[in-house]
Parts: sequence; C-alpha cells; structure tokens
Amino acid sequence: MVDLRSDTVTRPTEAMRAAMASAEVGDDVYGEDPTVRALEERVAGLFGKEAALFTPTGSMANVLAVRTLVGVGEEVLCESSAHIARAELGAHAAYTGLTMRTWVGRPVDLAQIETMFAPDMGPFFVATRAISVENTHNFGGGTVTPIEDLQAVRRFADDRGVGVHVDGARIWNAHVATGTPLDAYGACADVLAVCLSKGLGAPVGSLVVGTAAAIEESRVWRKRMGGGMRQVGILAAAGLHALDHHVERLAEDHANARLLAEACGVDPVSVHTNIVVVDVPDAPAVVAAVREHDVLVSAVGPRALRMVTHLDVSRDQAETAAAVLRKVLR
Amino acid sequence: MVDLRSDTVTRPTEAMRAAMASAEVGDDVYGEDPTVRALEERVAGLFGKEAALFTPTGSMANVLAVRTLVGVGEEVLCESSAHIARAELGAHAAYTGLTMRTWVGRPVDLAQIETMFAPDMGPFFVATRAISVENTHNFGGGTVTPIEDLQAVRRFADDRGVGVHVDGARIWNAHVATGTPLDAYGACADVLAVCLSKGLGAPVGSLVVGTAAAIEESRVWRKRMGGGMRQVGILAAAGLHALDHHVERLAEDHANARLLAEACGVDPVSVHTNIVVVDVPDAPAVVAAVREHDVLVSAVGPRALRMVTHLDVSRDQAETAAAVLRKVLR
Amino acid sequence: MVDLRSDTVTRPTEAMRAAMASAEVGDDVYGEDPTVRALEERVAGLFGKEAALFTPTGSMANVLAVRTLVGVGEEVLCESSAHIARAELGAHAAYTGLTMRTWVGRPVDLAQIETMFAPDMGPFFVATRAISVENTHNFGGGTVTPIEDLQAVRRFADDRGVGVHVDGARIWNAHVATGTPLDAYGACADVLAVCLSKGLGAPVGSLVVGTAAAIEESRVWRKRMGGGMRQVGILAAAGLHALDHHVERLAEDHANARLLAEACGVDPVSVHTNIVVVDVPDAPAVVAAVREHDVLVSAVGPRALRMVTHLDVSRDQAETAAAVLRKVLR
Amino acid sequence: MVDLRSDTVTRPTEAMRAAMASAEVGDDVYGEDPTVRALEERVAGLFGKEAALFTPTGSMANVLAVRTLVGVGEEVLCESSAHIARAELGAHAAYTGLTMRTWVGRPVDLAQIETMFAPDMGPFFVATRAISVENTHNFGGGTVTPIEDLQAVRRFADDRGVGVHVDGARIWNAHVATGTPLDAYGACADVLAVCLSKGLGAPVGSLVVGTAAAIEESRVWRKRMGGGMRQVGILAAAGLHALDHHVERLAEDHANARLLAEACGVDPVSVHTNIVVVDVPDAPAVVAAVREHDVLVSAVGPRALRMVTHLDVSRDQAETAAAVLRKVLR
Repeated sequence: MVDLRSDTVTRPTEAMRAAMASAEVGDDVYGEDPTVRALEERVAGLFGKEAALFTPTGSMANVLAVRTLVGVGEEVLCESSAHIARAELGAHAAYTGLTMRTWVGRPVDLAQIETMFAPDMGPFFVATRAISVENTHNFGGGTVTPIEDLQAVRRFADDRGVGVHVDGARIWNAHVATGTPLDAYGACADVLAVCLSKGLGAPVGSLVVGTAAAIEESRVWRKRMGGGMRQVGILAAAGLHALDHHVERLAEDHANARLLAEACGVDPVSVHTNIVVVDVPDAPAVVAAVREHDVLVSAVGPRALRMVTHLDVSRDQAETAAAVLRKVLR
Repeated sequence: MVDLRSDTVTRPTEAMRAAMASAEVGDDVYGEDPTVRALEERVAGLFGKEAALFTPTGSMANVLAVRTLVGVGEEVLCESSAHIARAELGAHAAYTGLTMRTWVGRPVDLAQIETMFAPDMGPFFVATRAISVENTHNFGGGTVTPIEDLQAVRRFADDRGVGVHVDGARIWNAHVATGTPLDAYGACADVLAVCLSKGLGAPVGSLVVGTAAAIEESRVWRKRMGGGMRQVGILAAAGLHALDHHVERLAEDHANARLLAEACGVDPVSVHTNIVVVDVPDAPAVVAAVREHDVLVSAVGPRALRMVTHLDVSRDQAETAAAVLRKVLR
Repeated sequence: MVDLRSDTVTRPTEAMRAAMASAEVGDDVYGEDPTVRALEERVAGLFGKEAALFTPTGSMANVLAVRTLVGVGEEVLCESSAHIARAELGAHAAYTGLTMRTWVGRPVDLAQIETMFAPDMGPFFVATRAISVENTHNFGGGTVTPIEDLQAVRRFADDRGVGVHVDGARIWNAHVATGTPLDAYGACADVLAVCLSKGLGAPVGSLVVGTAAAIEESRVWRKRMGGGMRQVGILAAAGLHALDHHVERLAEDHANARLLAEACGVDPVSVHTNIVVVDVPDAPAVVAAVREHDVLVSAVGPRALRMVTHLDVSRDQAETAAAVLRKVLR
Repeated sequence: MVDLRSDTVTRPTEAMRAAMASAEVGDDVYGEDPTVRALEERVAGLFGKEAALFTPTGSMANVLAVRTLVGVGEEVLCESSAHIARAELGAHAAYTGLTMRTWVGRPVDLAQIETMFAPDMGPFFVATRAISVENTHNFGGGTVTPIEDLQAVRRFADDRGVGVHVDGARIWNAHVATGTPLDAYGACADVLAVCLSKGLGAPVGSLVVGTAAAIEESRVWRKRMGGGMRQVGILAAAGLHALDHHVERLAEDHANARLLAEACGVDPVSVHTNIVVVDVPDAPAVVAAVREHDVLVSAVGPRALRMVTHLDVSRDQAETAAAVLRKVLR
C-alpha cells in the first residue's frame, strides 16, 4: 500500500519509539513533566515566542490559539477553505462561540480583507478581532504563503489593533520549501498552532505558541476542553525526536509531490510542498480506481483529489504511485 | 430633524396607538393571546407557510429561524455583509453554536456558493446545512434580489438536500418595489424572518415564518432565549395595523430614496427600495456635517454613508435632506 | 373564569392602556426612548443602584444579570428549585456557558452554601463566582427571605470576594409583605432582576438593576440575545403606571392567597405573599377537576399544586375559588 | 518523595513502556489503529456494552458520555461534589450547553433525587434527562457506591424514561474492593466514562463506554472537541497492559490507604478504596508541613486534606508517609 491520503498516517520510526520508551515523564497537569516542558520551550524558541502548550490535536491547538484573540460574539476573518473554517467541524463556533467571515480565493487577499474588515463600531456590528492565515494551505494544495504576504497582514492588523493567527500545521514544510526562518513566521503572528503529527511523523501532538500570558490562559482552557493529559512526556519525546531528525528531510516529500504532480498533469511549479490537489471529473471514482492498485488518495471535494507525501512514502513508492495515477487518469 | 439613520426609528401613528390601546390580549406563553395568534396566522398565510412566531426583535427571529435548519457545529453560507453575518453581534455562533462561511460580493452568487458548498463528507469537514439570502439587502443598499435568483438558490439547495433561510426584514419593500407576491418569496424559503418595526412602522416585533414543526420547536427556543413575552397582543395589534395600512405606502419611501440618491450623485436606478448607500471619503465626517443642518444619516463603514427613508420622513423632509446632502457632499 | 395559574396572566387596565397609548417614544437601540429611560432611572433609584436595563422577559433579565457576575465555565450557587435553575430551560448554561450547583431545601441555607462554596483553587476546580437568591421564592410558595438572611449572604459573599444575584421577579411582594424598603434589598445584591408583568400587572417587561458598568455591558449582551427592542416606551409606560398604582395593592393579593390557603388546609401563616403551593396526591387531576368549575390552577410538579393571586382576581373571585377548592380537595 | 496527591501521578513501568514501544499503530481518525480498536473492544466487553471510545482525558470522556444523554438546555442531576460538577471547570455547560442541579450529601440519595427530578412538563421547566453517579466517589473519599444503590438509580431512571451516567474514573477500585463484576456496573448505566491513567497507571487515556450508536455519535463530537488523535495505539498499548497487570493489585493500594487513615485518626472502615480525606483545621498548612518531610498530599477544600495511594507508592513508602502524617497532625 502506498498511502497518500494524508501526512497524518505516518507511523513512528524505531528510533522515535526508542525515544518515547525512555522519556522522562511526570504529571503535566501539575506542570511536572520535564519532557513536555522541554518540547514546549524548544518550540517557543524556534518561533521566537515566549511560551508554548502541548495539545492532543491540531484542532484543539487552533481552537485554543484563536480564542486567545477572539471571544464570544466576535469574529475572525479567514479564507473560506482554511482548515479552521472547513475542517474542524465548526469547533470555534461550537466551543468558543466566535463567528467567522470568509473570503473565497487566495490564502491571503488584502483587498478582500480590507473590504470585510469590521472595526469596533458600537453594539450593532460584529467586531473583527483577528485575521487567520493557514501556511502552508492544506486545501489550497500545500501552497506556501510568501513571508511578504504575512508581513503585510501583520502590518494591516497592527494598523487596526487586531491580532494575527497562523495555522502552522504544516509550517515546517513552508520553512523547508522556502528557507524562511521559523522565527520570521513567528514574528508575523500573535499566536500560532503547529503540528508534530503530520510531516514530522510524531504519532500525536500539536502546540499553541504565543505570549506567556496567552499560553497561561490557554492552559486552563485546555483543561476545560479535556486536553490536559498526564504523563505526556511519552508523546513529547516523539516530538523532540522529530524536530531533531524529520524537519530537513521534508524536502524529499516535496520532491515526491512534484513527481506525483507531473504524473497527474499538474504543473510541478504549482506544487510548493507535499500536497497535490488535482481537479478531476469524479474524485470518489478515482479514489476507488487507484485503490485497486494499492494506492490510497482522498477526495476533498466532489471534483478535488488530494495526494500527500510524507515520511512513510519512499521515492520508490512515489514512483509506483505516479505510474498508477498516470494510468488511471488517462 | 429629518432622521434618515434607519427605518427602525419610526414612531407609531395615532391610529396605530389606538389599535394597540384596544387590543384584546392574553398570556402568550400559555398560547392565549388572540391578537398575537391572529397576527401569526395572517403573516404565515401571506407567505404561504403553515405557521409563524412573534419575536421581540429581528435579530431573535433570525437566530431562531436559522437554527431550525443549522445545528451546533454545522454551517450556513451567506454573503459577507449579510445582516446575520455582520450586524447581529455573532449571535448565531454565540447562542446556536453554528458557524458561517461567507462570500464577498453580490447578495446571491451561485458560482461562489457552488465553490463553497460542503456536502456532508464524514467527520472531518463541516457540513453546509443552509444558504441564507437577505432580501432586500441592507448593507448592499436595500437592493432587491430578483425572484429568479431566489428560485435558483432554492433549486440548488433542493438538489443538495439543504435548507434556505430568507432574512426578510425588509421583504415588504422588495414586494412593493417589484410586485412579486409575498408567497412567491415564501416558496423559495424553508424559513423566513420578517420584521414589523422597520418600514412597516410598528414599534416592536418580528416573526419567524415556516413549517408548523419548525415553529413549534422555535417556540421553545424563544422561551429559552428570553423572548417569551406575556400580553403581547398590545404589540401584535400594531403589526396587524401596519399590514393593513403601511405596506403599499412603502412606494413613497422608495421615491424619496431615489430623490436622495440623485442629490448624492448616486444613480437612482441602483436604488431599489428605501436605502441609499454612498461611498464618501470620510463617512463619520459627513454624518457630523449634515447633523449641523438637522439631518441624521449613519456611517455603516469608514467610507460608507447610509440613508434610509421611512414612514416618518415626508416628501418635504426628503427634499430638505436632499438639499443639505447636495451642499455638504459638494 | 378565575385564573390562578400565575400572576403573569394579568391584563392591562384601562388606565394602563391609556398610559401606553400616550407614551412618548424613540428608538431605544439608539438610547433615544425617553419613557424607557425614565423607567430605568426610576427602578435603579428604587433599589439604590446606578442603572437599570429594560428587557422583554424576566428570563432574559436573569440571564443578563447573572452573566455580569459569572462567566463561561464558572458557577453560581442557588437553591435547587430556584427559577434560574428550574424554570428557564437551562438558558444560563445554553447561552452564557456557566454552570450551577444547587442545594435542596430552604431558599437561603448558609450551612449548605458554605459546604458547597468553591474558592478559586487553580485550574482543577470550578470556581464559585456568585450566590443567587430568589425573593420571593416562586416554587417555595411565594416565601419571603428575611432581609437578615440576605444580609448574611451578602457578608458571606463579601468575605470571599464573590457576587450576589437576587432574582426579584416578585420582590415587590416581599417589600409589601414585610415593609422592608426596596433599597435594603438592593444593598444585599450586586445585581437584581425585577419584573413588571407579574404582580404589577404590566403586559411585558423586566429590568436588570446594578452598577453603571454592569448595565452598560448588559446592553450589548441584550442586543446580542435579541432583546434590543425599538419604540419600547409603549411598554415602559405600562411599567411606570404599575409602579404608581399597583405596588401597595399587592397586599390585597396576599390576603386573597391566605384565604385560598385556608380552603386548601394550608396554614395561612406559611403563605407569605401571593402564592400557595399545596401537596396533593395527584396534581394534574386536581387541575382538571377545578377547571370543571371555571377555576384555573397549575401543577408545578407531579404532586405540587400552585395557585397565584393577582390584579385580575378580586376578593369575590378568590372566595369563589376557595369554595371550589375546598370541595374538590375534600 | 512519597507522592500522595493523586493516582494520576503514576509513571509507566518498564514493562508498560516496552508494550508501548512495540505497539502496532495506524491512523485512528481513519479508524485504522489496531491497538486502540483492541482496547476499545476489550473495555466495551468488560462492561457488557457494545462499544467504547478512547479519549485523551477523563474530563473529555465525561463530557462526551453525558452529552449522549443530555442536550443543550436540558439537565443532569448529580451530587454536588461529583467530579463532573466540581472538577471539570464547568465543561458540560461551557461545551455541551447542558445544565445541572445537584444535591448535597451522599453519592446516591434517592429521596433527594426524587424531590429534584423534573419530568418533561412543557416549555417552562428544564427537563431532567439523566442521573449521574460517580463510583468510586473522589471527593467523597474514594467511597464505593453499593451495586444495590446503582440498581435502584437504574430502576428509578427506567421508570421515568431517563438515562444513567456512571463516572467510573476509579470503577476498577470499586470492582476490586467489592468483587462486584464490571459488567454488573455496566448494566446500571447507559453510558460510562472509565479511566486508565489513575489507579491503572497508564500515562494517558480514558474511554466512553456505551451503545454502538452513542459511541458512533461520540466519535464525531470527540473530533470536534479536538480529541481525535492519530497513532494512538502507543497510548492504548499502555491501557491494555494495565488491564492485564494492574487491576488486581489495586487491593494493595487499598490496604495502604487504610494504613494512612489510621495514622490520621480516620476510621479505616470508612476508607473503601485508595483515597483518604481528612478534615483538618487548615488544609494548606498541612500540605506545606508534610512536604517538608518529602510527603506530598493535597488540599481539596480549605479544610479538606486528600491522600491517594497508587502504583508508585510501595508499602514502605506508605509506612513512611503514615509516620510523617501522624507527627504533623498531632
């Protein structure tokens, strides 16, 4: 099986399992797990932020991150296919009580953001409190938002006194693809959510990254949401191992994605990182057809096929999958 | 003073006050107020629906109406400056827990709706449960959505098994401006919210209009939200009076709005009903300047000026205001 | 018909209707309705508070009042049959996201409150933020909480830095029954909810009463909840009329309630105000039986019968009802 | 250090770490992790239920479990110091929007439950949808609720058509202390939450246990809450190991708890399982004093001291701690 459904499917390597098995742990609800503390400090440092908080999933990291900026009855602006808008089952509204307005189009579109932006004009209009950018953009096809665009969003937000949230589930891919330092991304955001269990290959875990005050507040909300785990150093050890060993190798995934793109008739220049989205007449039919050849891909819309490369897809497997896709799509 | 800030500012006429003073009433929480019952039945009939429910405000009517179609963690699609998205303080997220995705642009834009539409694809993606259209569209400038566009939305929704909500706060204006029967609008919607206290001139009150089952369910949610009033026939009597006497005369408001549009350099053909929105370099400054001449208008954005005609603005007053605006805007 | 189901069923008198018909009004969402302003100032003054806010119902007043003290994921303590716990359809949890713990027993029971009280002990335990007392206590049978008990709650709360909410839907009855000044009640509470449409006989309306800051904040939340009505002076005029004419006469309702109590074998000394609750083997059966004789009472539990006297029950009618009840209950 | 603060502080044993390191895993969001599947099936079987669902914490398990029975604006009845009422930061109200009423006293008190029970009496009163019992009862001092009491709650609930939730975070302790089979507990509940990371010594994890339909629904809500983890077999392997090796040994913890009770002047007969709660004049002071002697205990109220025995407290350590406590408390 070549599993291209998502980079979430990676299994921990032997070395990662060994790191987990020997991790020093404590009760993290009491703040006593040294391994998770080390991970949180390291990730905060990478992004130039004061603090970070481990969470069981990227969805919870995003909910906690956005709520540091946007409260009940307030709004965040984002692109209409952003993960927070489309792929978190409405959690931000259901659990934080915040609302969203979205634009349809490019991951960052300052003209539309400016049109939509709602200043705090008294008790009639919902007030925009934050702008959210996903980088890389999953449903956009793993596209990288240039740092200049993020900096423009940052300036726009600063001018109006509102916050910036970066959904950095795959920001490691953006970093490797462009060479932009992680702390340059950090400087554009008040708060980020970053993920260890996608391209980095850890089994479980994401982090919220931001100011010390935001993280302290998020720690309580994490407990309330049911995300306050105990001897979580077991999982954090996998994250530390991934940071040591699985960041730079993302370039291999990107090369494999370009290979798949070519096989599907997609311009490889448009494939920035490890995700390929292909327009097809009937996405579920293609999913079924390639499965016959032991290749798994996913439909992310009625006519949108998605393939994701990752740690558990070797160059050989990518070539095999490319051959299958070429045949099926012809 | 010529008050063009909103058609919500109208005061009840003497005849309306007399109708209220003599209204037969009962305890509506017990379902025993004959006047509110009569109003609910009449409004349901006008739109060709089974039942209706009186609410203290249009905001509550919209929250109750949308929740008959969209639950916690599900979504409604609407235009980004729709009243439910922009002017209800995030109530749908805060109180129902539903989420929204919006498009920027025309009140109905089927191409964008089709791009955004999210089928129920399993426990990863938020599912679209309804499309909402505001008619007339307040921040769009009181524009009428043609019945053909609403019918297209209806077909689109039927094809996908989702609902249609019409925010008909000013649907009376659309009806008078176009001659489209109210029940033709009703046929396009599963549920509508309509308002008595805007152009119709009642002091308080809106209604949710829909199926008997949706209204029965909404009655309980109205109680929970704190909208279950007692001898509400006093208010319903004003609504019945307004339906008898204040619908056809909306044509006068529309003529006055075109007069104001001309004075502001806006093409009167673009003014469909009783709202004029003008782009100006500095909306708050214009608000202040015309106030010096006893004319009240409002800023609905940093560069967006809004004027609304209504029952308490006579032709003479409209002409006075037009002269002031012409002078100030020059 | 003698309608003893609730004091919510009163219909406005002719004089009250006249006051409503001639009320000066404006758009209250813009803060321009002089009659509602006058009512808000008057009620604030009666309770010795800075400000008040008109709401469409007592339920909304309670939700807004409690949320000035208790936020998402925090708790209020109250008696288990308090109106906020039992008769508001869970609105405080559904809309504010706050939680409750309750004691079973007397309306104020400091020993139980002390047992339950949860100080803010870090991110494990829910923190008590307020204690709520209903006075008079509806399901307790219209019982008055002595001012000394309220003062003890006030001191308890002050010692721990938490708030006191008084649900004063029928505080007018407590005032008339005991002679305790309204501002003495006000001094025990941070925030009160008081009602005009029960014993006072107005058709619609309650108020939140508290500090200027709490009321300002509540005004925005009222708008979000759908309670921001427009020319609401029509309703406020009824409230002002009721304050002028319907407070002292509550003593007549209390006398009538004692008459009914005697007829039902209830010690009239236990009947503090206008509510009589009787334990019967089968409450719905009694409701049906007395209805045969044109007397309406209600079941508030499987074995709990409730009768409420009010403005629309004359002495003669009370005597008629007493005779019917005596016969049916024998 | 002898750490008696909670049985959540246990660290995985070497054997447990080995089990985790060699666990077969997959992407559980796709339902493809064989180890978590095996754990879920095994736990469902132990309690005689159709299905189970792994969650990152006991708090999330309880929130998901209760919401299978109780919706927005509905209520669950429980004892006032139950974990769901007191130690989950109001999550049930904040995230599900449900409300609670509580009784003060014994973990099961049918007389009080009967007094409080609210049938579905129309749109005025909140409806009781479930009764929740915590067994063993943490803040009650690890007390076991006799199976007869649970059966009585079951019958009471069946008679009224409502559900029973058992918070079985420490139900393993009840099972070992009494010999009552786990499926006998399961038969009393519609849904249970059980925990692996307390007495059983796993680092992370709880489960919701119930009908197949309830678990299928909970799987979606778990995703929405941010609890849908990926290669979670790593954690599930610890749970399977714990079920094999750490259940029967809980008897040792119980014996150690009785030893500590005696040292604190508490009747050891009152200590049913692994928790000792002692009334002291100043709990935080005792916490500080014993910490000087390398013994950690916790304050669960201003005058309530709590000690919990577990896998990481040997008999020798229990004796050491007993000596320290005897000295400090004298």
